[in-house]
Amino acid sequence: MTYTLVLLRHGESEWNAKNLFTGWVDVDLTEKGRVEAVRGGEQLREAGLLPDVVHTSLQRRAITTAHLALDAADRHWIPVRRSWRLNERHYGALQGKDKKQTLEQYGEEQFMTWRRSFDVPPPPLDDDDQWSQAGDPRYADLGDEMPRTECLKDVIGRMLPYWESAVVPDLEADRTVLVAAHGNSLRAIVKHLDGISDEDIAGLNIPTGMPLVYRLDGALQPTVVGGEYLDPDAAAEAAAAVANQGR
Amino acid sequence: MTYTLVLLRHGESEWNAKNLFTGWVDVDLTEKGRVEAVRGGEQLREAGLLPDVVHTSLQRRAITTAHLALDAADRHWIPVRRSWRLNERHYGALQGKDKKQTLEQYGEEQFMTWRRSFDVPPPPLDDDDQWSQAGDPRYADLGDEMPRTECLKDVIGRMLPYWESAVVPDLEADRTVLVAAHGNSLRAIVKHLDGISDEDIAGLNIPTGMPLVYRLDGALQPTVVGGEYLDPDAAAEAAAAVANQGR
Repeated sequence: MTYTLVLLRHGESEWNAKNLFTGWVDVDLTEKGRVEAVRGGEQLREAGLLPDVVHTSLQRRAITTAHLALDAADRHWIPVRRSWRLNERHYGALQGKDKKQTLEQYGEEQFMTWRRSFDVPPPPLDDDDQWSQAGDPRYADLGDEMPRTECLKDVIGRMLPYWESAVVPDLEADRTVLVAAHGNSLRAIVKHLDGISDEDIAGLNIPTGMPLVYRLDGALQPTVVGGEYLDPDAAAEAAAAVANQGR
Repeated sequence: MTYTLVLLRHGESEWNAKNLFTGWVDVDLTEKGRVEAVRGGEQLREAGLLPDVVHTSLQRRAITTAHLALDAADRHWIPVRRSWRLNERHYGALQGKDKKQTLEQYGEEQFMTWRRSFDVPPPPLDDDDQWSQAGDPRYADLGDEMPRTECLKDVIGRMLPYWESAVVPDLEADRTVLVAAHGNSLRAIVKHLDGISDEDIAGLNIPTGMPLVYRLDGALQPTVVGGEYLDPDAAAEAAAAVANQGR
């Protein structure tokens, strides 16, 4: 008896393509990103991995990825659940900034600290900044929980209550669960599942548009550490490319 | 104090374009249908009519219409609820048949009875017909309620329990509700809201891709009979075109 969880990172977004820090800015997928989403759905269908329920963030690039992938898998009709707790990491004052420029301006060490430090967030984003989400109606109910910046530790802290209260009950009801989300909210889930240390998580990159399948035992422990990509070679290649962003 | 309900019929589907009876066959939108959905969403945004929750059928053409319209309205992140009870009328043995051919073969009277009779359904569709939905996993829980053919009266009968148990609670929670569905499931809702007689409903056509807005009073009675289209002239023109299908 195992539970099945499928993680899917959204495909290329407009700001991935422009090499800008995105975070909570609600950019759209590029045409390449749409193709990635469809291909991810086709992989699910070919593998006979048919989600019974999908969880997404409140961000367009994950929502559209879920829609396109499920449409391609002929599972467009399954129940949908959404939560801000699956959103990408809030990138604070870096949101809207060019990655290469930021690297040149602040140097390798500061750049990598902001990108990969477990518990050091970038400076907070002003509420009146053009890239702030303060006042966005979709986050009106967050109150004090509304982030102005986040490190990965913060993402884990706000993701886990949703994992426990919404995703786990679907798994325990024996549903095949698809989570369509973002690089850092998915790293948070993987860190939790695989028990990765605060240091080692820095080296983990999740490629876009490639379904990552976890079979979990009754105690919600992975039967294969790290899960399994439906196309492992392509996933390894893509993960290496993510690690080199900003270079 | 009024509640706001927005009805949106999906845009042109592949089988609308081919002039085939569709019913429960899960065809996709055409490119024209996608454009209609986006335009419907733009109308919502321009009118400041922002849905808080969306209800769809389990059929691709309504699901994709909802996705595209909400994306265009910047409301892609709202909660989604789906039910087979919002599906198009099951067209029985006519599913997959050419409308013009059917008209020629059976004559005007029989054709119009099947299309517009309130309580005479077409002959039932065999479970082993290529256009049957028997065995489709999305309908696995329906049991005896799984239709093999339907007249409008049948659609009303299976739609109303969902209206009462799922749509009305959203309205009474003061949410602006979008229902993205089909010609006949929306006619069922309109007949219920406006108290249209079994005879007069035959003459009511709902155009595709045009948001139809009902403001309902505390007793869920329309404050304007028939609701209001955001673009009334275009809606009247389009409704006339629907009435002439198959000619």
